[in-house]
Amino acid sequence: MAKIKFTVITIFPQMVKDVMSYGVIGKALEKDIIELQVLNPRDFSKDKHQRVDDRPFGGGAGMVMMYDPLAETVRHLRKQDGSIKLSYLSPHGKQLKQDSINQMAQQQHIVLLCGRYEGIDQRFLDEFIDDEISIGDYVISGGELAAAVIIDAVSRQIPEVLGDEESAKTDSFMNNLLGTPQYTRSDELKQEGVPEVLLSGNHAEIEKWRQQRSISVTKTKRPDLLDGESE
Amino acid sequence: MAKIKFTVITIFPQMVKDVMSYGVIGKALEKDIIELQVLNPRDFSKDKHQRVDDRPFGGGAGMVMMYDPLAETVRHLRKQDGSIKLSYLSPHGKQLKQDSINQMAQQQHIVLLCGRYEGIDQRFLDEFIDDEISIGDYVISGGELAAAVIIDAVSRQIPEVLGDEESAKTDSFMNNLLGTPQYTRSDELKQEGVPEVLLSGNHAEIEKWRQQRSISVTKTKRPDLLDGESE
Repeated sequence: MAKIKFTVITIFPQMVKDVMSYGVIGKALEKDIIELQVLNPRDFSKDKHQRVDDRPFGGGAGMVMMYDPLAETVRHLRKQDGSIKLSYLSPHGKQLKQDSINQMAQQQHIVLLCGRYEGIDQRFLDEFIDDEISIGDYVISGGELAAAVIIDAVSRQIPEVLGDEESAKTDSFMNNLLGTPQYTRSDELKQEGVPEVLLSGNHAEIEKWRQQRSISVTKTKRPDLLDGESE
Repeated sequence: MAKIKFTVITIFPQMVKDVMSYGVIGKALEKDIIELQVLNPRDFSKDKHQRVDDRPFGGGAGMVMMYDPLAETVRHLRKQDGSIKLSYLSPHGKQLKQDSINQMAQQQHIVLLCGRYEGIDQRFLDEFIDDEISIGDYVISGGELAAAVIIDAVSRQIPEVLGDEESAKTDSFMNNLLGTPQYTRSDELKQEGVPEVLLSGNHAEIEKWRQQRSISVTKTKRPDLLDGESE
């Protein structure tokens, strides 16, 4: 799997850099297994005050992100890479599911646009956006957390990112199943409440138990995953 | 509406603090309109190396978060506030929707538990967890981004958080509708492509147009919201 480059267009570049600097994703960036570029439309504003937003035509609450700085940002990006597709994080978008994540993990360059305020001038969206992605049916203050969710979820699919520490193959939603219950050392509880099979050392039995528990947990909590209703 | 306190239990406390320091949420924290407490189970570990994770019983890839430091963290928290409910961010959980956000905004103290690695010892979950919340059908490397999404979405519902700058009332999913298209000043495009009504100054007509556009956008992109199928 080739290295994936993520480009995030955001007026809060440091927020995206901060949040991607922890845990396995932070390590993957350090090790150059994934690449993160963050572009701030403010740097592409020709306005003398470097404005990126203004009041909506027609009045009303809030501010709207302006066409010009965003258009300049995308034009700059297209000079770097003429084949980019621009994904806008928006509650209007197609709901993100694990299968889209797996597909995105096959791409080489993922470009994510983060809105803030009341949204982005519709003329920019009509001209430049290739698709809209929603992380769920709720509204947050900007696309940055959504972009971070996508970068994290996609990066996990690159085997080198998790290494031997973890495995994405046993993640929930792989094979349409939720993950199996886990148990580990406790000084307080000792082995109380730990299913005996897990202490048996019989790896075939353990594997069988985990598979069965994964199916039964899914049946109880998310039966829709098993009959494919969620697709 | 009373001030909301958020407590996040995480082994990456700085990640949560960082990501909550930007934009309207950062301002709301500065102004003490919302409160954020972050607790690190590592600080409650009695292990001499302050370990919070160990290998799973039964073997297999990855690490599992241990019962003891998490149990001590929650016991500490219960001394502060005996009435807390503990919500675990997990793909097993109930899918987050805007209506749950609106309900959470009525609470005074929201406690969010973030898992990492292969998950948390099931014995801890069985004993301490009140509910499980999922931000969507995909897997990310930890609960921190999910906690940030919830804190952001809930905080937006407090009128003082958005102030006059924005309005949550026109957010998508309010009244089961997506937001209306927005337009603002552009030096490059001038008024090209801006619907005439928005430039008319007729506020009643503008309001009517926005309502109609909001309905037609929802019909096109998310008809399920209109017939209530998404509930």
